[in-house]
Amino acid sequence: MFITFEGIDGCGKTTQLKKLADYLTKTGKKVMTIREPGGNKFSESIRELLLDKSNNLSPVTELLLFEAARSHLVETVIKPAISDGVIVLSDRFYDSTTAYQGFGRGLDMDDVIQCNAIATGALKPDITFYLDVPLEVAAQRSGNREKDRIELAGNSFFERVRLGFRELAKMESHRIIQIDATQAAEETFAIILSHLEGRL
Amino acid sequence: MFITFEGIDGCGKTTQLKKLADYLTKTGKKVMTIREPGGNKFSESIRELLLDKSNNLSPVTELLLFEAARSHLVETVIKPAISDGVIVLSDRFYDSTTAYQGFGRGLDMDDVIQCNAIATGALKPDITFYLDVPLEVAAQRSGNREKDRIELAGNSFFERVRLGFRELAKMESHRIIQIDATQAAEETFAIILSHLEGRL
Repeated sequence: MFITFEGIDGCGKTTQLKKLADYLTKTGKKVMTIREPGGNKFSESIRELLLDKSNNLSPVTELLLFEAARSHLVETVIKPAISDGVIVLSDRFYDSTTAYQGFGRGLDMDDVIQCNAIATGALKPDITFYLDVPLEVAAQRSGNREKDRIELAGNSFFERVRLGFRELAKMESHRIIQIDATQAAEETFAIILSHLEGRL
Repeated sequence: MFITFEGIDGCGKTTQLKKLADYLTKTGKKVMTIREPGGNKFSESIRELLLDKSNNLSPVTELLLFEAARSHLVETVIKPAISDGVIVLSDRFYDSTTAYQGFGRGLDMDDVIQCNAIATGALKPDITFYLDVPLEVAAQRSGNREKDRIELAGNSFFERVRLGFRELAKMESHRIIQIDATQAAEETFAIILSHLEGRL
């Protein structure tokens, strides 16, 4: 079982992922949590290159770096864990690339989809929770922590990213569950659990 | 004008590239020489990740990292130089990816071609010199310098890479000039110059 959490920073996905990991662990399940980009030494090196403000990366370079980190994580961590019967929870996966690099940066959508498929070897999440919040709510929740290179991209960029996520949730409604995440964390978590009932 | 040199390590491409750079500089041309992967700070970081023996990278991760470094080099170095009327000479370009990751590692050829196109924004060399030598000759020339992660891949891998380069030279004979590089460096250089006559 492979479950992913998506949304703009400050939407609450990291909180929900932790809640679900705790819940599943308590019910005796084997759980692994990862974040993208990153999750192991090699991918963390790529993460540093990606988020370093002094690297003036083009959208295409950004796309290819995310995909390189992803392919390594899929091969060395995600696929082996799934084979071992572990429930893998990931903070972001390829829907983020489609939303940020495709809808946000305006890269050719066929290129993005093709790169996603190459990097994942066609591995898809069983279920994806997209936590939808307006930019202002996300900004309030993120508070004053320092912004990285991608977070500095500006509001119109993040509006396109949010609309991209909403579009994806419509196009792949069998897999992506869109949840209004302006409500309290406990309410959002109850909705997540209700969608997992009978599937775990 | 964009000229690339291709072949397995030890084929003599670095020597020929330097000879051509010296020749062109003496005739008053503006010349820039680069190597792939690498050529600037960011790409050199990627190069280190690629060649580090402790990183156990899958063929797909290798492909995507090469393409990330390439896309950055194309955007920040190669395209601006060509626009300025500089003759750019590169030690390797995307034919190496097709030969090493496609023919050598056995990745899906459509994936490799698609990634090459995405990374280069469809930029093609005006002319490519492929220096063909048998593995034994290349090994003798390389001597005892320490091997990096990719050079450690073994003889059958490099045989596939060599056959791949020869296949590419047949398929794109209008662009790729295959030269028997077992002959003396001066003779190989004379052939290179003869192909450039009237084009510079």
